[in-house]
Amino acid sequence: MEFKKLMPYREALTLLLNDVTEIQDVEHVPLDEALNRVLAQDIISEFDVPPFDRSAVDGYAVRAEDTFQAREYSPIELKVIEEVPAGESPKMKVTSGTAIKVLTGAKIPEGANAVIMQEMVKREGEKIYVLRPVAPGQNVAFKGEDVKKGEVILRKGTILRPQDLAMLKALGIKSVPVKRKPRVGIIITGSELVEEPSEDAFEEGKIVETNSIMLKSLVHKFFGEPILYGVIPDEEDKIREAIKKAKRECDLVLVTGGSAFGDKDYAHRFVKLLFHGTTIKPGRPIGYGERVFIMSGYPVAVFAQFHLFVKHALAKMVGARDYEVKLRAILEDDVPSQLGRHEFVKVLYRDGKAKVIKKKGSGIISSLVESNAYLEVPEDSEGYRRGEEVWITLY
Amino acid sequence: MEFKKLMPYREALTLLLNDVTEIQDVEHVPLDEALNRVLAQDIISEFDVPPFDRSAVDGYAVRAEDTFQAREYSPIELKVIEEVPAGESPKMKVTSGTAIKVLTGAKIPEGANAVIMQEMVKREGEKIYVLRPVAPGQNVAFKGEDVKKGEVILRKGTILRPQDLAMLKALGIKSVPVKRKPRVGIIITGSELVEEPSEDAFEEGKIVETNSIMLKSLVHKFFGEPILYGVIPDEEDKIREAIKKAKRECDLVLVTGGSAFGDKDYAHRFVKLLFHGTTIKPGRPIGYGERVFIMSGYPVAVFAQFHLFVKHALAKMVGARDYEVKLRAILEDDVPSQLGRHEFVKVLYRDGKAKVIKKKGSGIISSLVESNAYLEVPEDSEGYRRGEEVWITLY
Repeated sequence: MEFKKLMPYREALTLLLNDVTEIQDVEHVPLDEALNRVLAQDIISEFDVPPFDRSAVDGYAVRAEDTFQAREYSPIELKVIEEVPAGESPKMKVTSGTAIKVLTGAKIPEGANAVIMQEMVKREGEKIYVLRPVAPGQNVAFKGEDVKKGEVILRKGTILRPQDLAMLKALGIKSVPVKRKPRVGIIITGSELVEEPSEDAFEEGKIVETNSIMLKSLVHKFFGEPILYGVIPDEEDKIREAIKKAKRECDLVLVTGGSAFGDKDYAHRFVKLLFHGTTIKPGRPIGYGERVFIMSGYPVAVFAQFHLFVKHALAKMVGARDYEVKLRAILEDDVPSQLGRHEFVKVLYRDGKAKVIKKKGSGIISSLVESNAYLEVPEDSEGYRRGEEVWITLY
Repeated sequence: MEFKKLMPYREALTLLLNDVTEIQDVEHVPLDEALNRVLAQDIISEFDVPPFDRSAVDGYAVRAEDTFQAREYSPIELKVIEEVPAGESPKMKVTSGTAIKVLTGAKIPEGANAVIMQEMVKREGEKIYVLRPVAPGQNVAFKGEDVKKGEVILRKGTILRPQDLAMLKALGIKSVPVKRKPRVGIIITGSELVEEPSEDAFEEGKIVETNSIMLKSLVHKFFGEPILYGVIPDEEDKIREAIKKAKRECDLVLVTGGSAFGDKDYAHRFVKLLFHGTTIKPGRPIGYGERVFIMSGYPVAVFAQFHLFVKHALAKMVGARDYEVKLRAILEDDVPSQLGRHEFVKVLYRDGKAKVIKKKGSGIISSLVESNAYLEVPEDSEGYRRGEEVWITLY
């Protein structure tokens, strides 16, 4: 038996994304643990940063106009009328011909509009000599120039990076609202699978099981908490039970093996599928329904199915934005493609160029190891020519 | 006092990378814990994968030539002379007019050169009817087509990804040789720093300390194990002691604050620096020597210094290859740049275009939050024009 009809990729993806819902649970985690987590709410600043105009350096607050005529050979003399100690605010006002000594972070005194770095003046007693003009605003950090009160500074769906954590700290946020990680059950099926290679295993036609470590790491990378349900032999009851248990315990379930229609491909029989069989290549027999993906057994097909479907489902579940890097690259090889297929072409991106990894075959893990990105060729395209510029997605 | 002379960026980077040495310690970690770790040795396969020509499907092993005339309206009849049970090898030889039933993974019988998927034939008793021709090699996974015995399949310096772990598992490697993570001490200095924002703190000219969480996450991202040595006030003895302790305990030390020549910038006095003051902007006052970086206090300067110097040092320490994503983007804005400065320009990359984040100022964390990549403008360039295509590096 074969698939009667393959569903176009975009149609299947739409069905999937309409079926998957965003997780509503919010966890509050310490800043220290928030790296790479997905923000569950907009973060709005409750104050201006900086809270007032302040000095960005140790130096002298002045009226910039007073310095416009300053030259090395004819310095301008200003009188220092106050020295603001660390942790205090200026009490005096700067008027023409005067300066106030301030430290980094201090409020800019009234009347001043610039700060001269202390290294830039000659000090003699109560006087300073300014050798070069300063512009209005120089060395002043203006009120709200970093963040304005009420501004949305980090948006829901942001995948938190080092600089985002620094910003959260600056805003006084100690406990960060992030999406709960989707629990993703991983069920590996197949009586032909063994845990490690050996002569005997090879003679018996066994295959080393590699999907669990790959899917576990991919789920981890794309916001999920992987939960392994072991390697299940091709026995109808055991597979049914494993799927039932995983569905109960997880937000999403990935079953590898059993997506085709062989005598022992059971998995797809226990789930009401929204689609089964799509135009993607490799990975055509993928099925999905009731929060369960029925995937191939071959690692390369599983990898393509993950990137073309599962990744997008996980991103929707946590509401993640900007979870892919897409870029333009010049093809170094022709990419012929079959009409009617949505091809997942593995490429090696480097220095603006994409080299096509020509090893074919859904079992050829080395083709994944040698590549770092993929090119998608939709159903209505016969492919691309060497030298063409195409969009690729890094992985 | 000012810097007498700024060292060109490339010269400083070369001094740094000549000084930093690769860590020789190798840790053997379980596959499960090897994601994102850096491979310490080449991985060479001890066997061919697959170990012999084997069937990629459940079906019938045949001589492809026998099927060339097969048509739906005039099927070819073949005699099934053996059915190889799961876990056994074929005993018979395929000759003209015969076929052997094989399961996925089984050895290809002698004489056969292709496998017909079982869904593609009509079976009647001991006979099958072939409706379409198969090509030589079809549905055969050839010996060594994935990995050849003796081949270097993963190179030293690889940052391990999900598919690499799958490959290691296929090769029977349970314990992965990776570089020990460099221990990176982080010392934050500055009496003006507080842990959280408050009205009082602002009035006193205090600044919320954000470098520790940012550097900790950056070190984590770039292969290191961050070790925090707390926030040290601007007191000569305490800073000297902290640097001494961190140097003893760590492979690399990052000290923020105190890189300039203010009265209270002590840090640079305790280390024999290879360079101090470079052409980078922001972040000019960076110093390095004796495995210690003396960095700015301002978050944006620290961030730039990390990407322009520290990141490359860490990558060298673990021997990591391909640790940056560099891509071409069309500039959406002019980028004027000062001759003699190596500028670190923050951009927002999206859909092939780079928008320049115009907020200036080394304290403006929001400029980092709004960007996701940087453009470097070297000393001899006056900048780029809107519409030009430039290289950027993602962060």
